[in-house]
Amino acid sequence: MTSDKTNISYQAHIVEEYRSEESPYYLPVKDEIDIFHAAYQQKIPVLLKGPTGCGKTRFVEYMAHNMNRALIEKETPSADEGAALPLVTIACHEDLTSSDLVGRYLLEGEETVWMDGPLTRAVKVGAICYLDEVVEARKDTTVLIHPLTDHRRILPIEKRGELIEADDSFLLVVSYNPGYQSALKDMKQSTRQRFISMEFDYPPVDLEADVIAHESGVDDATANKLATLGEKARNLKEHGLQEGASTRLLIYAGKLIEKGIPARRACESAVVYSLTDDAVVQRSLNEVVTSIFE
Amino acid sequence: MTSDKTNISYQAHIVEEYRSEESPYYLPVKDEIDIFHAAYQQKIPVLLKGPTGCGKTRFVEYMAHNMNRALIEKETPSADEGAALPLVTIACHEDLTSSDLVGRYLLEGEETVWMDGPLTRAVKVGAICYLDEVVEARKDTTVLIHPLTDHRRILPIEKRGELIEADDSFLLVVSYNPGYQSALKDMKQSTRQRFISMEFDYPPVDLEADVIAHESGVDDATANKLATLGEKARNLKEHGLQEGASTRLLIYAGKLIEKGIPARRACESAVVYSLTDDAVVQRSLNEVVTSIFE
Amino acid sequence: MTSDKTNISYQAHIVEEYRSEESPYYLPVKDEIDIFHAAYQQKIPVLLKGPTGCGKTRFVEYMAHNMNRALIEKETPSADEGAALPLVTIACHEDLTSSDLVGRYLLEGEETVWMDGPLTRAVKVGAICYLDEVVEARKDTTVLIHPLTDHRRILPIEKRGELIEADDSFLLVVSYNPGYQSALKDMKQSTRQRFISMEFDYPPVDLEADVIAHESGVDDATANKLATLGEKARNLKEHGLQEGASTRLLIYAGKLIEKGIPARRACESAVVYSLTDDAVVQRSLNEVVTSIFE
Amino acid sequence: MTSDKTNISYQAHIVEEYRSEESPYYLPVKDEIDIFHAAYQQKIPVLLKGPTGCGKTRFVEYMAHNMNRALIEKETPSADEGAALPLVTIACHEDLTSSDLVGRYLLEGEETVWMDGPLTRAVKVGAICYLDEVVEARKDTTVLIHPLTDHRRILPIEKRGELIEADDSFLLVVSYNPGYQSALKDMKQSTRQRFISMEFDYPPVDLEADVIAHESGVDDATANKLATLGEKARNLKEHGLQEGASTRLLIYAGKLIEKGIPARRACESAVVYSLTDDAVVQRSLNEVVTSIFE
Amino acid sequence: MTSDKTNISYQAHIVEEYRSEESPYYLPVKDEIDIFHAAYQQKIPVLLKGPTGCGKTRFVEYMAHNMNRALIEKETPSADEGAALPLVTIACHEDLTSSDLVGRYLLEGEETVWMDGPLTRAVKVGAICYLDEVVEARKDTTVLIHPLTDHRRILPIEKRGELIEADDSFLLVVSYNPGYQSALKDMKQSTRQRFISMEFDYPPVDLEADVIAHESGVDDATANKLATLGEKARNLKEHGLQEGASTRLLIYAGKLIEKGIPARRACESAVVYSLTDDAVVQRSLNEVVTSIFE
Amino acid sequence: MTSDKTNISYQAHIVEEYRSEESPYYLPVKDEIDIFHAAYQQKIPVLLKGPTGCGKTRFVEYMAHNMNRALIEKETPSADEGAALPLVTIACHEDLTSSDLVGRYLLEGEETVWMDGPLTRAVKVGAICYLDEVVEARKDTTVLIHPLTDHRRILPIEKRGELIEADDSFLLVVSYNPGYQSALKDMKQSTRQRFISMEFDYPPVDLEADVIAHESGVDDATANKLATLGEKARNLKEHGLQEGASTRLLIYAGKLIEKGIPARRACESAVVYSLTDDAVVQRSLNEVVTSIFE
Repeated sequence: MTSDKTNISYQAHIVEEYRSEESPYYLPVKDEIDIFHAAYQQKIPVLLKGPTGCGKTRFVEYMAHNMNRALIEKETPSADEGAALPLVTIACHEDLTSSDLVGRYLLEGEETVWMDGPLTRAVKVGAICYLDEVVEARKDTTVLIHPLTDHRRILPIEKRGELIEADDSFLLVVSYNPGYQSALKDMKQSTRQRFISMEFDYPPVDLEADVIAHESGVDDATANKLATLGEKARNLKEHGLQEGASTRLLIYAGKLIEKGIPARRACESAVVYSLTDDAVVQRSLNEVVTSIFE
Repeated sequence: MTSDKTNISYQAHIVEEYRSEESPYYLPVKDEIDIFHAAYQQKIPVLLKGPTGCGKTRFVEYMAHNMNRALIEKETPSADEGAALPLVTIACHEDLTSSDLVGRYLLEGEETVWMDGPLTRAVKVGAICYLDEVVEARKDTTVLIHPLTDHRRILPIEKRGELIEADDSFLLVVSYNPGYQSALKDMKQSTRQRFISMEFDYPPVDLEADVIAHESGVDDATANKLATLGEKARNLKEHGLQEGASTRLLIYAGKLIEKGIPARRACESAVVYSLTDDAVVQRSLNEVVTSIFE
Repeated sequence: MTSDKTNISYQAHIVEEYRSEESPYYLPVKDEIDIFHAAYQQKIPVLLKGPTGCGKTRFVEYMAHNMNRALIEKETPSADEGAALPLVTIACHEDLTSSDLVGRYLLEGEETVWMDGPLTRAVKVGAICYLDEVVEARKDTTVLIHPLTDHRRILPIEKRGELIEADDSFLLVVSYNPGYQSALKDMKQSTRQRFISMEFDYPPVDLEADVIAHESGVDDATANKLATLGEKARNLKEHGLQEGASTRLLIYAGKLIEKGIPARRACESAVVYSLTDDAVVQRSLNEVVTSIFE
Repeated sequence: MTSDKTNISYQAHIVEEYRSEESPYYLPVKDEIDIFHAAYQQKIPVLLKGPTGCGKTRFVEYMAHNMNRALIEKETPSADEGAALPLVTIACHEDLTSSDLVGRYLLEGEETVWMDGPLTRAVKVGAICYLDEVVEARKDTTVLIHPLTDHRRILPIEKRGELIEADDSFLLVVSYNPGYQSALKDMKQSTRQRFISMEFDYPPVDLEADVIAHESGVDDATANKLATLGEKARNLKEHGLQEGASTRLLIYAGKLIEKGIPARRACESAVVYSLTDDAVVQRSLNEVVTSIFE
Repeated sequence: MTSDKTNISYQAHIVEEYRSEESPYYLPVKDEIDIFHAAYQQKIPVLLKGPTGCGKTRFVEYMAHNMNRALIEKETPSADEGAALPLVTIACHEDLTSSDLVGRYLLEGEETVWMDGPLTRAVKVGAICYLDEVVEARKDTTVLIHPLTDHRRILPIEKRGELIEADDSFLLVVSYNPGYQSALKDMKQSTRQRFISMEFDYPPVDLEADVIAHESGVDDATANKLATLGEKARNLKEHGLQEGASTRLLIYAGKLIEKGIPARRACESAVVYSLTDDAVVQRSLNEVVTSIFE
Repeated sequence: MTSDKTNISYQAHIVEEYRSEESPYYLPVKDEIDIFHAAYQQKIPVLLKGPTGCGKTRFVEYMAHNMNRALIEKETPSADEGAALPLVTIACHEDLTSSDLVGRYLLEGEETVWMDGPLTRAVKVGAICYLDEVVEARKDTTVLIHPLTDHRRILPIEKRGELIEADDSFLLVVSYNPGYQSALKDMKQSTRQRFISMEFDYPPVDLEADVIAHESGVDDATANKLATLGEKARNLKEHGLQEGASTRLLIYAGKLIEKGIPARRACESAVVYSLTDDAVVQRSLNEVVTSIFE
């Protein structure tokens, strides 16, 4: 009576073979692409810092999809030279164990088989491995990446007594949000100092309006108003808002508008209520909404 | 000597096939149905905020049961196009692990079989998946839904090294009660900002009286008195009551009255004692009961 | 060399088939039987509140043993229509897991068999399931009973991907002692508001004397003295006693007297020393004992 | 290369068959034997309270060894009617789980066998089960004994879905040391009020001297001096000593003296250093030793 | 690809058969050997108290190696009567479980075999079992040794339902460092009062110089200087040093000197830097070093 | 659908056979090589103390690679006498268990095989075993190395009941960063006093410039500027910087410069952002960068 016997068709992918079909929409702000390219060529791990929803994840997806593989001085070039680099994304959390990353033994029928974890897959196949919000992970996880981030570039698989050499095209990218850091969940200096760091922030209004229009389908005027709302909401951060509105929420508002929800209600639902439970701050935000969409 | 050998007949359902037989009784208050429809069409996850027993769960049940499937622009339409959407409800708690949601390997006789968890079932079958009181769940659970709530709409099943694409009709809905939030159990902004939000509150007296009469079978006059009791009890919230009386408790009182329990005793049992252990607040509440059912 | 090979005869029962042979001795105080009957007919879960040893457990045992099954409007009447309702009692504690209640897979010889937990058994067989001191249980346990206590009356068995519909004669009863509640171990409003509530207290002196005489075998005069001792000891509660003497302790004293222990020593052993380790409070209690059994 | 292949002869006993060969040496102080007999006849569980090493354990061993089985009104008398009652002793600690007490499934070769825990063995065979320092145990353990200590006298074995009826000659005895109790490790009233209680203290000097002489083999004069040392050391308790010297330590001192260690050094080693690390208190104690053994 | 297939030769011993080849070098300070002999004859467990590295472990090794087995009044003499007593040493720590001590079931190929833990081995073979820093162990471990330390001398193996009688030549020895004790990690009186106690301290300068010369190979003059350094460093304990220098560190300094490292540098490396990270205390210590080795 | 079936070629090594191909680039500062040699000859364990990235790990790699094996007075010389010593590096963390170090039983197909952990491998093969940041490990891990660090040089493998003698060429080296130590994560004196200690610090500017030029490929002038930046950044430590810049970060900056990133941006990315999130400290650091690379 298990669901395995029910007949449902669905799409499943092997982790390291999954690639988004079209290139993610990313508009560069500064020299971030050049620095990433240099780090990639020199095999230096990269740390992305910045607030929620400012585009860190999208940047990594864009870089993986458009990596100029000619940049890679590989010794043994792989078959799919011209294609995008595979990207293995792992959202870190406080219960993520090193086994979740490296792999574990599983019973399959009568056989015990070793199951590579996503990090091991990325290391072997030469993917970009992106550990999102890395400080959320348990300490054994951060220690695990130490030998991958020094000159050895090896991943120890202790349960098998093996050391895996990272493929030449492998790169480790991690992100974290400095606004979240507490004394308890800080990144240890011995981990931090294994990365070059790139600071991200929300895009300027005109760039963000382009993104909103592109992603939600609203017209440029509405997109501009939503981008302006984003900017003003971020300025409210000192007045009780824990964090600014992400580009994603502004796109959500656009999408609701596209389906006929009045702009003010759309912003209330997608931006105001999603940002805060505080009635006073909600009122301030709604005033901003009204002043823009009057 | 196990109970497996005893001969008891009982009704069992596969999780994603369970549907309530009749449409839940729900009376809309504002434009909540329109906004939900728009979010569903745009595949935007939805967050429902509001106090205990104000109707969030019933609203989701109603939406699932009456979803206008014409709204869904599906690529591969499923067989049961005209039927209600399946609804998979998961009550979150602090011991809910990601395995509970995604699935695990089980030994069945001599074979090891993979057992999809309720979230995986919902993702595959294209159900509405409702995570009730999502902030109660462990952090690994909230992180798990991140890739489901961005443009990728994928569910990683790490133990199998797979990524599952969500069916087009899948929608994630979560709820939480802002009154409960403590510093420890707040929703992280990086999770919050993946949803549009809808705020719920108790229904107005006349609407609630309709619900009470419909559900408990008492006459309109009694239903009105019970709804009035509910409203007044909620106003006592500042005077020592942790939370207001839910519609459910008022229906319970009606049901006891229907079976011949005197109204005051019914209210004492279903409302007063259920709301609080504090003798002083109990007295205030009983005075309210007496003033209504004199 | 295990005990399985030793030859000991003993009595074992399957959980849901165990019934006490004779009706528990219970003397009603108010309308508690009527309210319980009404709740049972309406399938409303019941919460019993009251201090240690005031008779909550005995009340449930009495109700299960004497339930007028004609009250039950069953769709599919079960075989043992005329008999007492089965009662499944579960003493909650902070290590009680949802698996303990719902069931787990066990290896039996070469086969893996599913073992229903006591709650699942009660749900299937249509028993009264009594969760004693429910706030002591872990949070996952309290969440587990949510779908059992709303209009769906279903028990999700996540490890099997099943939902079990409760038998029509099933009723959930929980108890707790408001005197124990701390901030940490309070019952969440979202759980509380799923029950009607009945408050219990120690019985009046004459009723308690009847119980003591019946249970311990002492004469009425002695029973009366013991009941008086109980009442006075409860009044000492403000003077350092954590909780009053339960009827059980008074019965113990009676039983020791029956076996020839002098009354004062019997009360000292069964009541004074059992209630407190505080020498000052012990002295006050002994003075009460002496004043009664002089 | 495991020790199973080495050839060592040793004595092993099945838990419930172990009996000490000779009757423990116990000298009654008051009416404790009568009260224990009465409780045993009435099947009332017994709680022993008192400081470390005052003789609680020895009392239980003595009662088990010398129980007048004629006192037991058994329905089905067991084979070894005339013998001592078996005694199952369990030292409680904070990691003691209910499985440790009740039993667990074990793999033995290719078979899975159920292994009764010591409490289950005691319940089935009708032993006295002695839970030493019961408040040290985890809460699930204390809850486990609730159904054993009310009128049902049953032990639920949840993993097997069974309820075991206690044999008629079974009695539960628990002990605890009120001096240790903290807010965290107090006995809950709902547990306490299931026992009659007996308070124990160190024996008077002459009685203790008899015990010391009997157990260590020293002459009466030395035994008297050691008993006097014990009494005086206990009076020092207010002056920095956490607890008084147990009879056992005084016997140890006697045994060292018997093997030729000078009395003062024997007392220093067995009493002074064992009682405290505090140099000041050690000096006070040594002065007491010197004043007695000058 | 596991290391089991690599071909490395190495020496492995069964725990209870391991004996150091030559007698440990130990110089008695007082009557410690007599007291230990008396305790051994009387089967009284022994507690050794003293600071880090003052020679407790070496004393036990010496006693085990040179035990006059004629002292043992055995009932069934073992084969190796004339040899040294086996010594089983267990370094306690906060994760040491009772299974680590007593044993556990292991799967070996297709069979489940019971694997005795080191304590069980010691109990069966009649070894001296030395629990080093016993207060570091978890509470279940300390409780485990209770029945071994009273008149019963039995070890309960709960997973097998067995009680093992200790061999006549078995003795339990535990150590702890009173300087470490905190409120949390104190030895419970109910455990303490099961041992006679022996206090150890660093040896006097001349004795320690003998040990240093013997163990490191330096000449007597250098050994004397190192012993003097040890004494002076211990006097600095009030001035910021957590603990004095152990004899071992002084031997290390001697060994470095033997290999040509200048005395001051050897003392800095082996004593100063090993004792403290505090720059001020390091300077004080270095001044002491300079004053001695000028 | 597991990755085991996908066809990826990658390099894997057995732990104890992995050796870096070329000698690590290390420039000695003082007499550290002599002291390490002396300790190695005398089989004295070594503790390296110093800040993040000052070269401790590189020193151990250099020593292992260039160990003069003639120094080793072995009893049974191994086959690869002339080669570098194998080096087994283990990064410690708070979830590292003793099983991770010593080994565990694993199911492989139908067989249970014992899998040596990296410490056991090092002990058997006679490697240098380097426990990096040893105080991060759990306490059971530090206790485990006690018998390896005294005269016995044995590793107890409790799960097999074995004691392994360390090969003559085995040496234990541990490191820790005194700047990190808190009261909770201090090294116990009973562990510390088993090692000689060597203090490390950042190299002087000229030496560090050599290393930077050698590792990053920049010209000497740039390398000098980067080394000067390192020195100045370390002097800022009192002004809000948690720790100084490691040599590694300076090399990263050089590598970015090598790939065409302007020096100031390279330093910002590799040094400033990697060292701190504090905007004020970032500004101070950037001023230092500007003053050097103007």
